[in-house]
Amino acid sequence: MMKIGVFGATGRIGKLLLEEISSDADLELGSVFVRKELDISLPKGTFVTNDLEIFIQHCDVIVDFSLPEATKALLHALTSNPKPIVCGTTGLENSTLKEIDKLSENMPILYATNMSQGVAMLGEMATMLSKILSEADIEISEIHHRYKKDAPSGTAITLGQKCAKARGLDLSKVRISSRDGNIGQRSKDEIAIMSLRGGDIAGKHTIGFYMDGEYIEITHNATSRLTFAKGAIKAAKWLIKQKNGLYEIDNIFR
Amino acid sequence: MMKIGVFGATGRIGKLLLEEISSDADLELGSVFVRKELDISLPKGTFVTNDLEIFIQHCDVIVDFSLPEATKALLHALTSNPKPIVCGTTGLENSTLKEIDKLSENMPILYATNMSQGVAMLGEMATMLSKILSEADIEISEIHHRYKKDAPSGTAITLGQKCAKARGLDLSKVRISSRDGNIGQRSKDEIAIMSLRGGDIAGKHTIGFYMDGEYIEITHNATSRLTFAKGAIKAAKWLIKQKNGLYEIDNIFR
Amino acid sequence: MMKIGVFGATGRIGKLLLEEISSDADLELGSVFVRKELDISLPKGTFVTNDLEIFIQHCDVIVDFSLPEATKALLHALTSNPKPIVCGTTGLENSTLKEIDKLSENMPILYATNMSQGVAMLGEMATMLSKILSEADIEISEIHHRYKKDAPSGTAITLGQKCAKARGLDLSKVRISSRDGNIGQRSKDEIAIMSLRGGDIAGKHTIGFYMDGEYIEITHNATSRLTFAKGAIKAAKWLIKQKNGLYEIDNIFR
Amino acid sequence: MMKIGVFGATGRIGKLLLEEISSDADLELGSVFVRKELDISLPKGTFVTNDLEIFIQHCDVIVDFSLPEATKALLHALTSNPKPIVCGTTGLENSTLKEIDKLSENMPILYATNMSQGVAMLGEMATMLSKILSEADIEISEIHHRYKKDAPSGTAITLGQKCAKARGLDLSKVRISSRDGNIGQRSKDEIAIMSLRGGDIAGKHTIGFYMDGEYIEITHNATSRLTFAKGAIKAAKWLIKQKNGLYEIDNIFR
Repeated sequence: MMKIGVFGATGRIGKLLLEEISSDADLELGSVFVRKELDISLPKGTFVTNDLEIFIQHCDVIVDFSLPEATKALLHALTSNPKPIVCGTTGLENSTLKEIDKLSENMPILYATNMSQGVAMLGEMATMLSKILSEADIEISEIHHRYKKDAPSGTAITLGQKCAKARGLDLSKVRISSRDGNIGQRSKDEIAIMSLRGGDIAGKHTIGFYMDGEYIEITHNATSRLTFAKGAIKAAKWLIKQKNGLYEIDNIFR
Repeated sequence: MMKIGVFGATGRIGKLLLEEISSDADLELGSVFVRKELDISLPKGTFVTNDLEIFIQHCDVIVDFSLPEATKALLHALTSNPKPIVCGTTGLENSTLKEIDKLSENMPILYATNMSQGVAMLGEMATMLSKILSEADIEISEIHHRYKKDAPSGTAITLGQKCAKARGLDLSKVRISSRDGNIGQRSKDEIAIMSLRGGDIAGKHTIGFYMDGEYIEITHNATSRLTFAKGAIKAAKWLIKQKNGLYEIDNIFR
Repeated sequence: MMKIGVFGATGRIGKLLLEEISSDADLELGSVFVRKELDISLPKGTFVTNDLEIFIQHCDVIVDFSLPEATKALLHALTSNPKPIVCGTTGLENSTLKEIDKLSENMPILYATNMSQGVAMLGEMATMLSKILSEADIEISEIHHRYKKDAPSGTAITLGQKCAKARGLDLSKVRISSRDGNIGQRSKDEIAIMSLRGGDIAGKHTIGFYMDGEYIEITHNATSRLTFAKGAIKAAKWLIKQKNGLYEIDNIFR
Repeated sequence: MMKIGVFGATGRIGKLLLEEISSDADLELGSVFVRKELDISLPKGTFVTNDLEIFIQHCDVIVDFSLPEATKALLHALTSNPKPIVCGTTGLENSTLKEIDKLSENMPILYATNMSQGVAMLGEMATMLSKILSEADIEISEIHHRYKKDAPSGTAITLGQKCAKARGLDLSKVRISSRDGNIGQRSKDEIAIMSLRGGDIAGKHTIGFYMDGEYIEITHNATSRLTFAKGAIKAAKWLIKQKNGLYEIDNIFR
């Protein structure tokens, strides 16, 4: 039976991961890393530790939904203790992303800002439409619950990057997040990513391709955050069979 | 037969006004104001002038879709030559809005950033929902064609003002037009108005009311700019029968 | 403390009702009616019975989300044992609806096919728009999860009835549920209610008002079925303070 | 200069075709077929005829947006007078479709129920998602103006066929157009195509892929019927350079 190590067990997704693992007959909760005492109930016999090396040793694959600093520490510990890892922490610095790239020479790593199959498909379609509908104006909007602290969502940025890349553009140079005042006509290359916040919405992303006489909008709706936990578990099961290297979420659905 | 004076005849809406007037058996094109020579074809016998006073004298009611500076000059001329006027020019300064208020003591004036009945209804619903769904997070988004130069649309701002007013808030203090970075959780009172631009979209406005467990979205779509010209004509026919005073577009649909 | 009697405790909404009651400091689970043994865990000390009269005696107010036949039996038992009741069972026969009407002379009854405040607001807007936008073509669509057995949803029918009534029409005469083949142009009065099914969608309802040059769409989305349980609890708290009579869900939100 | 023959010049799309041709410097209106006298104004010198053979001889490529019976007659005349033809007539009988197939051995023919590039892209995405998201429930909805006489739209049926084909299904066996009454749970393979009608909407098509925890919706909106005329012209310019054979609209956008 495959033993999963959960890193970030007290977060929104972390809690759902524990539920998913306990209800999956093929999985076992190998180890849980905690910095301080845990305010959540764990299955009896769960191996809980605040020692990174021991945490790594007690599992076959790691799933990480934590915070940028914590992920950084985990990656450091993995240097001398390679282990397959699915990482879904958002907001990582560029230096951390480079670290992931380097580490993947010694272990299989899957990094994704969104673990749902639907979002992976949205990304594929975005790439295709950005290329073929070369005259279209591209605009992205997303809405999440009122408690989300960062904007735009990591998913929206990933989608924007796919659109920009398909046209040979750099998102960081064409992205805008505001339109306010007498700003003049839209420029051809700009891609707006607009963030709405409200209620308890799990997450909705729309990419629009606006042309003369017609437009296409492609939308992904998460009806439950469980989607992301399920996707990560699926990714972990897939990753454990792969060679060393860096993988994207799109790989597991093909 | 009612004689209409068209101010701003070379603009997008102005051209449609001329078409509407020529196809309406109850209306006659009284006069058209031009500053320079006109590059559009007018019905034979149309009275064209670059003299504001003469323009005003040759019509029973004025419809104005022009630019802020032009509207200012027209209002000045109306001071000594009162005449009913439907004004749809957007982006007016506060001083001009005050001038309109003052002038309306001597003539009936209808001022509106949007002349469609549907948008008027959206405004009524926005007021109702903002009050009754007091716990809801309010967010507004709009999309217009790629050539639109100002953002957010005048209509979106008017809708936002109705939402804010219904909750005893001042839109200028709670409106935001961007969410970018680690901005923290949404505050209760903020109202985002997000502007998308692309293709040839005539105009779409959505107001969302997001709560725990449910949300409502109300949307208005213009399928043609002709809607705005038709609304202005309807307003002119209505306004000519009213007493001096300042009117809103909502009044004519009740 | 107010004691609630839950009728239909094993259904989808029934289970959520039990959760809501146990987490609300102002409420106590008075009694639960069961026909057979119960396969759900109940708080210790819960009064469980298969005797309708005893069930009624042990609570201050009843909340019923069951099936048409069960509701019929419950109403019969209430005849000689009046008690305030919130009834959310859908698919009731006309004879049962008449029975409710008659019983309400002796106890306060609230009957609603949907307990959410948002849907109540949608209904108010539907009535307003159907009247004022008298030229608009009205169309309704709804989508629910793949397990829903009846179509259209009770909520969609209630919304359609409000639209029809506002125009002096009888929904049963103007409603259509299919368009297939060479059916000719749309007639002015017809109201389509189209039902989509798929995935795990909690419930989405859209009413469209389509005119020349513009249209309005108003949409309600349930992000969780908990919304309906919460609405019923809110209704029960409100109903217990009312005089005998028949009430609609709209009443409690004003 | 390429000479286009317009068949069906008095229809909605036919009129737009004439406009497009007259404003395109690379095109000339070669001939127009009429059965009776024409109530539309044509450019001076247009070759108008009620003789099918002469009509065919006076153009380099034919664009046909007519009615099933008329298309049948035209195809018959083409048998002995081969000429490239773009056919956009909807509602053709199976026997006519077979005739097209056979004729294409002797001339290039492009047949499409929708000439817009956006709809072609929607079809490609539909095929991809139907395959990869094999667990998803597929549902299609479309809305058109109140004057449309057939339902579902030819475009919706074509999209449904692509979805069905991608799963090895036959649309005619899995398509449903109504859900009304106690119909039970949704079956896995069924594909609903629901048609809404109202106002002056040029055409909107949505395909939804509904899963547990998430769903994707892809939508195409026509903002103007001119889109279809422009697409047909583009197709004609492309077709004239092709070998004999039967082509789909998707071919011209690649």
